[in-house]
Amino acid sequence: MRMSKMGVRPEKQPPKDAEAINHKLLVQAGFINQEMAGVYTYLPLGLKVLTKIEDIVRKHMDKVGSEVLMPALSPKENWEKTGRFQTVDVLMKTVPANEPSRLKNDSEYVLSPTHEEIVTPLAQKFNLSYKDLPVAFYQIQNKFRNEPRAKNGLLRGREFRMKDLYSFHANEEDFKKYYETVKQTYLDIYKELGIGEDTYVVLASGGDFGKEYSHEFQTLLSTGEDVIYKNKETGEVFNKEVAPEDADNKEKYDTFKASEVGNIFTLHSKYSDAFGYSFTDSDGARKPVVMGCYGIGISRLMGVIAEKFADDKGLVWPKSVAPFSVHLIDIRQGELSGKIYDDLTNAGVDVLLDDRDASPGEKFADADLIGCPLRVVVSDRSVAAGGVEIKARGGQESQICKIEEILDKVK
Amino acid sequence: MRMSKMGVRPEKQPPKDAEAINHKLLVQAGFINQEMAGVYTYLPLGLKVLTKIEDIVRKHMDKVGSEVLMPALSPKENWEKTGRFQTVDVLMKTVPANEPSRLKNDSEYVLSPTHEEIVTPLAQKFNLSYKDLPVAFYQIQNKFRNEPRAKNGLLRGREFRMKDLYSFHANEEDFKKYYETVKQTYLDIYKELGIGEDTYVVLASGGDFGKEYSHEFQTLLSTGEDVIYKNKETGEVFNKEVAPEDADNKEKYDTFKASEVGNIFTLHSKYSDAFGYSFTDSDGARKPVVMGCYGIGISRLMGVIAEKFADDKGLVWPKSVAPFSVHLIDIRQGELSGKIYDDLTNAGVDVLLDDRDASPGEKFADADLIGCPLRVVVSDRSVAAGGVEIKARGGQESQICKIEEILDKVK
Repeated sequence: MRMSKMGVRPEKQPPKDAEAINHKLLVQAGFINQEMAGVYTYLPLGLKVLTKIEDIVRKHMDKVGSEVLMPALSPKENWEKTGRFQTVDVLMKTVPANEPSRLKNDSEYVLSPTHEEIVTPLAQKFNLSYKDLPVAFYQIQNKFRNEPRAKNGLLRGREFRMKDLYSFHANEEDFKKYYETVKQTYLDIYKELGIGEDTYVVLASGGDFGKEYSHEFQTLLSTGEDVIYKNKETGEVFNKEVAPEDADNKEKYDTFKASEVGNIFTLHSKYSDAFGYSFTDSDGARKPVVMGCYGIGISRLMGVIAEKFADDKGLVWPKSVAPFSVHLIDIRQGELSGKIYDDLTNAGVDVLLDDRDASPGEKFADADLIGCPLRVVVSDRSVAAGGVEIKARGGQESQICKIEEILDKVK
Repeated sequence: MRMSKMGVRPEKQPPKDAEAINHKLLVQAGFINQEMAGVYTYLPLGLKVLTKIEDIVRKHMDKVGSEVLMPALSPKENWEKTGRFQTVDVLMKTVPANEPSRLKNDSEYVLSPTHEEIVTPLAQKFNLSYKDLPVAFYQIQNKFRNEPRAKNGLLRGREFRMKDLYSFHANEEDFKKYYETVKQTYLDIYKELGIGEDTYVVLASGGDFGKEYSHEFQTLLSTGEDVIYKNKETGEVFNKEVAPEDADNKEKYDTFKASEVGNIFTLHSKYSDAFGYSFTDSDGARKPVVMGCYGIGISRLMGVIAEKFADDKGLVWPKSVAPFSVHLIDIRQGELSGKIYDDLTNAGVDVLLDDRDASPGEKFADADLIGCPLRVVVSDRSVAAGGVEIKARGGQESQICKIEEILDKVK
């Protein structure tokens, strides 16, 4: 992508109202734009990161479920059936904007913060025999929560991207087996996203459902909003809600600040009961379907990764989710830079070309702010030295690379 | 994809409440599920088609604009600025679902049916000089309209997928040049989607803006809700609103039933004026930015394509948007079918394997209903005859193909 055509540019300063690091840097670097508290537009660079995260999540989820795309709008009756129309305090509904409505359709719809109310009747429509189970559906789309305070950038939004997976089982044993598979799949995902080493499976409170099959995935983050406790001896990790009474004993437990990047938990038969979703087992008996629920906050992950790796110069993206692999800076070598850009792009390398009418200093600062893994500079000086100057983001040393060797170097 | 793992199966009958062909077939074949009038879940097969359409649209749109992702929620104030909070009769707003709200956040948000109210201030933030113009942003996401009647399947939804593009120009001349580029890009898209020959650029009423720069793209469809008129001599095509007075003269005009699959039109400076978005021109003068708007209904296109090519046995997808290239039917040859499935999949061919415990008759009928371009049958009979049986959907003849030649045949 050519920055001159992007329609967006990095700003000199972070937005004044921003508190969280991810909010400050992602807005300043031109990845997102805040439309109102907790509601963002993903700009070209931000959408690249979001899409890369989604593609990694999708690749792994395809191994454990079928992808579908459920609507944001959901029938009110379904939420009344499960009792959640009254109990979910962040729930929003839609009404006609014009009062009194000029339309005959005065219906109210729920704007979904989660999809048990849609996916349970959906599974029920198709999977009524033990032969059809287990089955699992997942999706990646926008969710809505009327958060009273939404000020942590992408970490807590009113509208946000989620991957949510729901599984349906003939019995608890089958659910438990599947649960362990998904747990491992999540760890594979975090590893590929570049946060594997610092992400823990954490025992969590399962709310109504008991804690044995309820886990959070927490990524170490010095600015994180959560605290986790790791038993030095057993390696078990707990969140605050379920931590043992002596968790503040520093001889026995390590304490970390962290941020949640996923959760998995059993739903037992709460939702299948609400919709009367039972199945015929091999013995002919009708039994309730056992459900599990598994979430990954996609936009939240983007915020956590941004915040975790940032340094005092800006963003530092892991290779797997960087908006571009190469940030190519042109300094008055337009023709040569254009040729290198075309050659790399045609060879399948993701390149951001800074071809703007801006000073070298501004271009260097913006490259650090944007945080692509490799910076390649084409200038009179680099050409005189024999080619282009290559430097890793976060690294100290740069080196000169011959023009004909760039592709090997960046791949 | 293995049908036994899909979690969804075709139905014996279309849904009773469905009227439109696309609604009947897409639900019966298991592509979509109606959650309420005008609101659908895309099931695995349906999501494949939707994604293929989106990928084609995205590939072409990347040549004329920068992709972004704007939110569904939009600040009410922006809609009050443009006056549309009161004038758009299908507009919905959100309110807390629980009354009285237990939350401190009682804010109301608009649920966007279109995005001028977000994209105009966005372009304004970054592009204030003539040097920054022209610029264009596009996105693919869900839109919301509180349609009083929503009964044409994917052709008129309350929640639907759109590609919307907005362009910003220093003057009318630049807009006009870009407009022609987008018009051609749209035609390229329809061609790749398999409906190029039957899709017309149609002069339309520009509403407030005059008709010269307002066009619809209409695809011939015997069940279409629109009528278009083609001047036999000049080749000009008009929609009903702007057709000449003698358009019913059959000597002069051909009349067709058709369905709209896209529209493009000028916005002049209506929205830039509303947000005070002007720019500094090369002569130092402040001038209002000229805007254009360009839509393609992605889910609507899926409905039109489904409806246009369907026959009495079911759906017939063009190759470019078929959920799978090959529908592989296993008839008691599980091991061989599995091997062929693996080999084709590993070679990059999109294969749907019907490995369900169902009768051959049911599998053949479902293959016709689902409508993938090629049907490949593995049975005792085909093996005895020397391999597998291959038949094109919609074709009459089948042929036996050696197992080692399948890949060449289907590619």
